[in-house]
Amino acid sequence: MASNAFGLFFRYTSWGESHGQAVGVVVDGCPAGIPLDEKMLNEALARRAPGRNYFTSPRREEDQGRLLSGVFEGRTTGTPISILITNRDARSSAYELIAPLLRPGHANFTYLAKYGYFDHQGGGRASARETTARVAAGVVARQFASETGSRVLAYLGELGTSQATPVEDPETAAAYALQSPVHAPDVSSEAAFMEELRLVMEEKDSTGGVAHFHILNTPVGLGDPVYEKFHARLAYALMSIPASKGFEIGAGFAAAAGRGSRLNDSFGLREGVVVPAGNNAGGVLGGITTGETVYGRVAFKPTSSIGLPQNTLDLQGKPATFQLPEGSRHDPCVAVRAVPVVEAMCWLVLADALLMQKAVASQNSRPVAALPFAGDGL
Amino acid sequence: MASNAFGLFFRYTSWGESHGQAVGVVVDGCPAGIPLDEKMLNEALARRAPGRNYFTSPRREEDQGRLLSGVFEGRTTGTPISILITNRDARSSAYELIAPLLRPGHANFTYLAKYGYFDHQGGGRASARETTARVAAGVVARQFASETGSRVLAYLGELGTSQATPVEDPETAAAYALQSPVHAPDVSSEAAFMEELRLVMEEKDSTGGVAHFHILNTPVGLGDPVYEKFHARLAYALMSIPASKGFEIGAGFAAAAGRGSRLNDSFGLREGVVVPAGNNAGGVLGGITTGETVYGRVAFKPTSSIGLPQNTLDLQGKPATFQLPEGSRHDPCVAVRAVPVVEAMCWLVLADALLMQKAVASQNSRPVAALPFAGDGL
Amino acid sequence: MASNAFGLFFRYTSWGESHGQAVGVVVDGCPAGIPLDEKMLNEALARRAPGRNYFTSPRREEDQGRLLSGVFEGRTTGTPISILITNRDARSSAYELIAPLLRPGHANFTYLAKYGYFDHQGGGRASARETTARVAAGVVARQFASETGSRVLAYLGELGTSQATPVEDPETAAAYALQSPVHAPDVSSEAAFMEELRLVMEEKDSTGGVAHFHILNTPVGLGDPVYEKFHARLAYALMSIPASKGFEIGAGFAAAAGRGSRLNDSFGLREGVVVPAGNNAGGVLGGITTGETVYGRVAFKPTSSIGLPQNTLDLQGKPATFQLPEGSRHDPCVAVRAVPVVEAMCWLVLADALLMQKAVASQNSRPVAALPFAGDGL
Amino acid sequence: MASNAFGLFFRYTSWGESHGQAVGVVVDGCPAGIPLDEKMLNEALARRAPGRNYFTSPRREEDQGRLLSGVFEGRTTGTPISILITNRDARSSAYELIAPLLRPGHANFTYLAKYGYFDHQGGGRASARETTARVAAGVVARQFASETGSRVLAYLGELGTSQATPVEDPETAAAYALQSPVHAPDVSSEAAFMEELRLVMEEKDSTGGVAHFHILNTPVGLGDPVYEKFHARLAYALMSIPASKGFEIGAGFAAAAGRGSRLNDSFGLREGVVVPAGNNAGGVLGGITTGETVYGRVAFKPTSSIGLPQNTLDLQGKPATFQLPEGSRHDPCVAVRAVPVVEAMCWLVLADALLMQKAVASQNSRPVAALPFAGDGL
Repeated sequence: MASNAFGLFFRYTSWGESHGQAVGVVVDGCPAGIPLDEKMLNEALARRAPGRNYFTSPRREEDQGRLLSGVFEGRTTGTPISILITNRDARSSAYELIAPLLRPGHANFTYLAKYGYFDHQGGGRASARETTARVAAGVVARQFASETGSRVLAYLGELGTSQATPVEDPETAAAYALQSPVHAPDVSSEAAFMEELRLVMEEKDSTGGVAHFHILNTPVGLGDPVYEKFHARLAYALMSIPASKGFEIGAGFAAAAGRGSRLNDSFGLREGVVVPAGNNAGGVLGGITTGETVYGRVAFKPTSSIGLPQNTLDLQGKPATFQLPEGSRHDPCVAVRAVPVVEAMCWLVLADALLMQKAVASQNSRPVAALPFAGDGL
Repeated sequence: MASNAFGLFFRYTSWGESHGQAVGVVVDGCPAGIPLDEKMLNEALARRAPGRNYFTSPRREEDQGRLLSGVFEGRTTGTPISILITNRDARSSAYELIAPLLRPGHANFTYLAKYGYFDHQGGGRASARETTARVAAGVVARQFASETGSRVLAYLGELGTSQATPVEDPETAAAYALQSPVHAPDVSSEAAFMEELRLVMEEKDSTGGVAHFHILNTPVGLGDPVYEKFHARLAYALMSIPASKGFEIGAGFAAAAGRGSRLNDSFGLREGVVVPAGNNAGGVLGGITTGETVYGRVAFKPTSSIGLPQNTLDLQGKPATFQLPEGSRHDPCVAVRAVPVVEAMCWLVLADALLMQKAVASQNSRPVAALPFAGDGL
Repeated sequence: MASNAFGLFFRYTSWGESHGQAVGVVVDGCPAGIPLDEKMLNEALARRAPGRNYFTSPRREEDQGRLLSGVFEGRTTGTPISILITNRDARSSAYELIAPLLRPGHANFTYLAKYGYFDHQGGGRASARETTARVAAGVVARQFASETGSRVLAYLGELGTSQATPVEDPETAAAYALQSPVHAPDVSSEAAFMEELRLVMEEKDSTGGVAHFHILNTPVGLGDPVYEKFHARLAYALMSIPASKGFEIGAGFAAAAGRGSRLNDSFGLREGVVVPAGNNAGGVLGGITTGETVYGRVAFKPTSSIGLPQNTLDLQGKPATFQLPEGSRHDPCVAVRAVPVVEAMCWLVLADALLMQKAVASQNSRPVAALPFAGDGL
Repeated sequence: MASNAFGLFFRYTSWGESHGQAVGVVVDGCPAGIPLDEKMLNEALARRAPGRNYFTSPRREEDQGRLLSGVFEGRTTGTPISILITNRDARSSAYELIAPLLRPGHANFTYLAKYGYFDHQGGGRASARETTARVAAGVVARQFASETGSRVLAYLGELGTSQATPVEDPETAAAYALQSPVHAPDVSSEAAFMEELRLVMEEKDSTGGVAHFHILNTPVGLGDPVYEKFHARLAYALMSIPASKGFEIGAGFAAAAGRGSRLNDSFGLREGVVVPAGNNAGGVLGGITTGETVYGRVAFKPTSSIGLPQNTLDLQGKPATFQLPEGSRHDPCVAVRAVPVVEAMCWLVLADALLMQKAVASQNSRPVAALPFAGDGL
């Protein structure tokens, strides 16, 4: 069944296996006239790419995206944008020894049940390599959606048992994370994360983490009520990232233990415009953006691949020990490299919601960009 | 934009406003031959209905569902199933006094921005009354999906600051919750929840809660990899319920702080069939069901409507105090009545995934119901 | 599988069987603020309704539509519009005698093969009664789409072997058809059609016909290239009407025999705006509307139900004679009553395309309503 | 808006401009285990490719398809299949002289109105070059759908004013057409078509044609009633091919002038199985396949590009003469090269319907392949 696409209006289809020739994406629905070139793609891909430092999988991929269609003289033309990223370091032979064993925490058990074949080449479509396509599509979405002034920021807020220092200013935090090898929001959190990662690696184990995201300057009015709520689509998108196990928006799970009198955001004026005076809601009311920052968290489980031996079964159902070969390529914490993927998915949901809103807005609607009714009655 | 429907194959469209004549749903895609009658509908609707006890909104609705099409002699015919529920106690006059104020925590601010009009009749489509349609559609989904032996169970695991006693057996817990006025999983949790609710009501305040759900006997192989992951669609569905702020599957957010060596579920044999030997995964690997129980949690914020006065603005942007009229109808904790809605959405996601799987299953696939490869090689 | 809905943005779901309690439709995606009331619905339904005159099925249906949601004080609110039409004259007993025979030209053979049951109650969803829902939805579409100034006109251009006098002015023709019992475009065609219909009825036979449609004042720029071409969606919509066997746009099949030099429409100026100087194209170039009238034809086969005895098989495969009971209700020519359904589907395709265009239009686009580039260079 | 994809379950997305680097397609939803290789692709692409003979555009394209994903050891894996075809002979400079003129019959007028820019590079996405992607996707569909025994055949039945000799046996006709430079069904029709084409070319003009298609051995039960009728989706697909102006199924427009007594197909037995005894219906009843051959016709207008000078306007609205430069590349009759595209779209609709049917088929359904109820009662 066709299930490798995301988005209703700004829709992309991702293709390619971890150990095939290439991965890629076709973005269908991006408006014309948006600046886009391969340099932008490659900067974003580099951030997600493995092999950059001590803390990520040593797989070496240049991850150079080629723009094959939909762009003319540096601008989108409104036609589908095809992006191709060649796989260079696809060593499927590394997986052959471990082929006939069920891998704890991995999807090869469920793929076998669903499709009747056993992929031993590094995960196929279940591999995090598929997220390369998401990052590439996310660049296109960013180029379009950022024209409204919106910005998506993300960083790693928790890594294993380490929590980052509470972030005051998401912009500073995200700027720091952009160049941090562990996408930490500041220098002391980075040190703590790296210390925990070193420990995890020494133990030949893995750990998880929690990505924090902020969507700034979101236009008011995005998202449709009932089933296409802005945060429902965000949850859908973010929970499709490999290894994600939890999602929350605004005050999230903590809201459940609070009181309405404290959590209800009041209203106030900002430059003559009515705005929420607090943001426990996380930028959405009734599934529609309020214009305040949309923020939330996404939890990632520990990387399934670990260096330690694990009990499992072989395909005949006989007990076996699964151990990755020495020098196998994997990340001690997938949440680190998930950060740019979280950003990409936020951009993609935002771009889709922006186009959706265009189709909704009637002449009776107020401009999406601002709610100008203060002072002039209604 | 058309956005009042959910599901790809087992798809329903919900309609109706809180204070209009009726609410309803059309279920499109339910296979033929499934037992369905109005009695089943009404039992389920009764559970969600307001006015049943001290702890829910005193709005009185009989919530009798009428089956208008798609059923012949007690069985579905494969054609669309139209269900209509008349609104009886729609007192929109009760809202007139509070009309010209922005209500903290409510969607009337965002609806005004998006659509350019101000609904003062009790929430319109943003009202929890819309969830009546979900519960009705959920009955149809249950009738279909339970034929595979699957069961959906839910209860309230947390209410405000009170946590239920950890549940050993979801079946017992859900059976208790079915008749508990606060959908608590056992008698002592019920007492604690009621005590906190009484306190909240005395304070004219509101609180939130966390619904726990369990999908038992899920066939292995449901969900499509990449974007239609089983738990991504669950998140999408559950985060569309009014007031939901967080979702997690399996070990959830706690998984982020753990280690792979402990959280990876190993494999074992059960009656000669290979199965996961643990279930930190929450019944999904790579987005595809493992055959183990799918379980998770959904957080709900406190009810936005509270008895206490709240600072806000009027539509001219002037400071005002918003206070519900004495005797206004609202729930002190919407999470209580959300429990049957959570169940309904789980059934709907499950029914959709079952039909989706039919289109996927090729002759190369193993039967979805069991993974019979143990002992016979591959 | 969910397949009872049409439209991407302006989407409706139809429900109800020919001989059940009611038929209905939910229109999802209609913008807010559009005038709509039950009187409009009922005028349109009356036109399609049976039992109006000698030439249509004597089934008596008042076909009163009830507006259950989505409208407040005579205007749409942007929420789903639910319309219910009760079946009053559903005499399924009339069909009992003929139950165990395959009916030539009818869908009960294919329904039996597809669903495994044999509907002997007058066609179920395959019945033309389903088109009541289309007409109701079409009224909503008309109310929205006519705000752009567009108009949909239709009449019967051919009935059996009789061809209407070539139409000079579609408006006059459609106005005449509106009150003609056979939807003929003028008095002499009406006489010819009625004469042929009388002959057909005397022979206890049936015949077909060709509906002509014209969409006037279509904005330029509707339809998306490649797969969502305006006329491809029209063909999709119109070929879904029961008994339709052919579709053409503009010069249609005749174009195949022509020469490019004659059929290519040149360009000219009209009130300073560039427009096509001819309209062999039928108002579309590359699948996008040119602003000229979109026109075409839809062919309908003869009514399958006839008074003459027909050879067939019973459900045991034994030869049998199928003969409708004396006084059975059917139309001698379904094309007659298809005319308002053709109109409805044209409005629905147009409404959908208008919303689609909103999502497409970028700041680089020229206004859809007119192409103002003449004289000012580019 | 995302509009470059077709199909619900077996879905493909096409990308690439006529004069860009490459065109391509991603097929999402093809089941696993289907034989597929580049040789198959290239044979099909060669048939559609230009530059093969005197009667087609002299543009030289090797049209070698590269399979980038979704295939392992010669079989599909169930993951998206990405196919890339490099453009080699993309001479956009040839178009520069004619850039500032509106081209009669072409889509550059409507593209300008819709998107606000004027593509002078040979048609972009409106170019017939996009159909390369359809043919490539059609090969994948064929590989899957032909496993049921189905076959799609097509040939040119009419070219300009020349009609082919009526075809007795579609298989022989299609086999002849496969190697005929004008896709004629037999030697004498081929001679007539070629004679007319020569005349057209001498006159520096163009003409149209009508493709006939036959889908043999279609399983009974495909297509969903109401809106996803098999022939409604065929019409949708076929009317999306550039230059198509008409579609009919079975007896088509001629049926409108007939009588029910003659056109209703009776039923009979074939090898103990109940089947329609005639096929005026064209293999569908109520939108569901009967198991008989699905057949119909698609009309194509004359090629818009002609050698003769044509009156038009420039972009300032000033009268101008449009004349293609000497040696410009175009086909005298696009219908010729449309034949393999018609075949491809039929395969794609069939593949989609086969997957759709899997999701529909319940345990109550009879097997799709045969209707075995003869003799055994019901």
